[in-house]
Amino acid sequence: MIAEKMRPYLQNNSAIRAMFEEGKRMAAEFGADKVYDFSLGNPNVPAPEKIKESIKEILDEEDPVFVHGYMSNAGFPHVRKAIADNLNEQFGTGFSENNLIMTVGAGSGLNVCLKTLVDPGEEVIVFAPYFLEYGSYIRNYDGVLVQVEPDTDTFQLNLSDFSEKLSPKTKAVIINNPHNPTGVVYSEETIRQLAAVMEEKQKEYGHAIYLISDEPYRELAFDGAEVPFVTKYYDNTMVVYSYSKSLSLPGERIGYVIIPDELEDSENTITAATIANRISGCVNAPSLIQLAVAKCVDAKVNLEYYDRNRKALYEGLTKCGFTCVKPEGAFYLWVKSPVADEMQFVNAAKKYHILMVPGSSFACPGYVRLAYCVSYETIMNSLPEFGKLAKEF
Amino acid sequence: MIAEKMRPYLQNNSAIRAMFEEGKRMAAEFGADKVYDFSLGNPNVPAPEKIKESIKEILDEEDPVFVHGYMSNAGFPHVRKAIADNLNEQFGTGFSENNLIMTVGAGSGLNVCLKTLVDPGEEVIVFAPYFLEYGSYIRNYDGVLVQVEPDTDTFQLNLSDFSEKLSPKTKAVIINNPHNPTGVVYSEETIRQLAAVMEEKQKEYGHAIYLISDEPYRELAFDGAEVPFVTKYYDNTMVVYSYSKSLSLPGERIGYVIIPDELEDSENTITAATIANRISGCVNAPSLIQLAVAKCVDAKVNLEYYDRNRKALYEGLTKCGFTCVKPEGAFYLWVKSPVADEMQFVNAAKKYHILMVPGSSFACPGYVRLAYCVSYETIMNSLPEFGKLAKEF
Repeated sequence: MIAEKMRPYLQNNSAIRAMFEEGKRMAAEFGADKVYDFSLGNPNVPAPEKIKESIKEILDEEDPVFVHGYMSNAGFPHVRKAIADNLNEQFGTGFSENNLIMTVGAGSGLNVCLKTLVDPGEEVIVFAPYFLEYGSYIRNYDGVLVQVEPDTDTFQLNLSDFSEKLSPKTKAVIINNPHNPTGVVYSEETIRQLAAVMEEKQKEYGHAIYLISDEPYRELAFDGAEVPFVTKYYDNTMVVYSYSKSLSLPGERIGYVIIPDELEDSENTITAATIANRISGCVNAPSLIQLAVAKCVDAKVNLEYYDRNRKALYEGLTKCGFTCVKPEGAFYLWVKSPVADEMQFVNAAKKYHILMVPGSSFACPGYVRLAYCVSYETIMNSLPEFGKLAKEF
Repeated sequence: MIAEKMRPYLQNNSAIRAMFEEGKRMAAEFGADKVYDFSLGNPNVPAPEKIKESIKEILDEEDPVFVHGYMSNAGFPHVRKAIADNLNEQFGTGFSENNLIMTVGAGSGLNVCLKTLVDPGEEVIVFAPYFLEYGSYIRNYDGVLVQVEPDTDTFQLNLSDFSEKLSPKTKAVIINNPHNPTGVVYSEETIRQLAAVMEEKQKEYGHAIYLISDEPYRELAFDGAEVPFVTKYYDNTMVVYSYSKSLSLPGERIGYVIIPDELEDSENTITAATIANRISGCVNAPSLIQLAVAKCVDAKVNLEYYDRNRKALYEGLTKCGFTCVKPEGAFYLWVKSPVADEMQFVNAAKKYHILMVPGSSFACPGYVRLAYCVSYETIMNSLPEFGKLAKEF
């Protein structure tokens, strides 16, 4: 007697849970240090010390009625101002606190954007491979997910297929940069071209097409890669951000949505998004952690930790003969499966206690994702096992 | 170009914002101590000291990767267990951690229940007066809100109208106990009768009708009033709880949903509700505050503070000649407007710098709500002004 709409999720959920349970079972059977679990995007770099200090300072210095109390549904104005000022300094933008809505992480932020924009039957374009949860979020509003096929040479945006998938029903386009699961960073040139295609189609169709840029990995870019700040290239952009990765706070559910003044009908859209945040049931982003991140706008997690992992895993797997997309951002390595059916590869890896996520879980079969937000030891110890795995194929 | 579905909210939102802005304007013009703002349900009793101590302890003693990390979408198992054990001790129930899902406050909890249960076109019954946000939550899932008219003698549940409003399309019924906005506590007898009617209709229609009991004010009961624990009276009950009022943490967005084993198809329902929590974008309730409330299951805010306010306001207004429902719970006083159009009364009160919420905002015109979660001084200073207001009518 649960809702019909929820039934399909029950089926799918069992598969994911089975995988998760298998990891736990293997750790119990063989010892956690003998299991190489690359399946989860759960950062194991601790939050910067400044987070802890800031929380304690707030608790000691501020009135608890203020610290734990309600505020505007968009979040504390001074928190939004501190973040806007910091963004303006970094990117030369001109945001005020009114352009920001604090959200319960990027997941809620994406839902706020989609609820604000999408009516039943309207289309939202995503680029494969993509985080499958985008599909759940789009279905929450009875939107229709339209998938662009991957450019398997570069895993940059496949703009020729994109042009064909745009239609008068397209309401929004979601990109994710730096990219989960490929580790690719979309270049400025890619973003410019994307914007040009979208501008042209907006004119042709006579209505706005919104770009939703999901950027929880914004700061996780390596080898000097620059992550273009998308509002500078396309007016109808909403940016969704989370502190889950940049400050290692995934469980705290803290992030924000930016809606620039340049966006069409921005004032009503900001109001509607603030209401969407409220009526989704979130009401507002959690208060204490809002106050804490405002004090930590300059804090960063230890990027070198991820960078060392990145290099070790990429080089190690390449030496074993695997074909990998060289990751420039996020904390994922995207590996071509040596056989077309990557489940065969994923299952073979389990023999060596290696857990990885099949590309099918990102709508892109034939590949696997390795999350290298693990300990360096896990990576180094896994390499001989990858060597054995390689010999099987 | 925002979604058509969001347009009605923009209109309505402006009215609420206008009221909020007026309060701020008045405080700026006349001084905050000369404005008697009874409009907001924002507790001004601080969170218990133990919350602060617990948060500091957790930060000092636990690994930040654990404290701020992802956990099961239902919440930390040990947190759920601590809460379940405490409930079992208080109410003689038999919950395990599997019966609890930690949520982003009661707002999210209600959405989790409704998303889990309601398909488009199914009916959800609410009892007037009610928190209008229930309507937004039900509309999120294209459910149909069906309103039971108030019993204006007692403001207990109007079960005769309820019986007539139940239909084969009824999927769920929402009650709120202790009650916002009336301050009434539903008696055990009321809950027994409600359960009997629902049992009968379940049999008649041949399918489950779920009772969603929204209980953020559970601990706020006075004069020895007992708040019945609803799962003991009706199997198909989901309880929605929040620490917003009981621990004065409204901004932190922390609460839970209970789905008992006795509920029909409970295992699938719990799984579906956990998925609903995830795909709503919340993913999980905020982690640090989950850990903190688990250490504070026995903590309470200062109930005497509210009780003193309650008595002072009730007695003061009754002496002025106003007709009030004697409040036994929550922190609201429900006052009959001396004129049928309560907006006339609300507007007249503004002359005396008294702000109150019209009953129409709870689908029950002819009454007003006063939130007495303000300072005692505000109440005492407002009474002479209420006296002047009374003379006008």
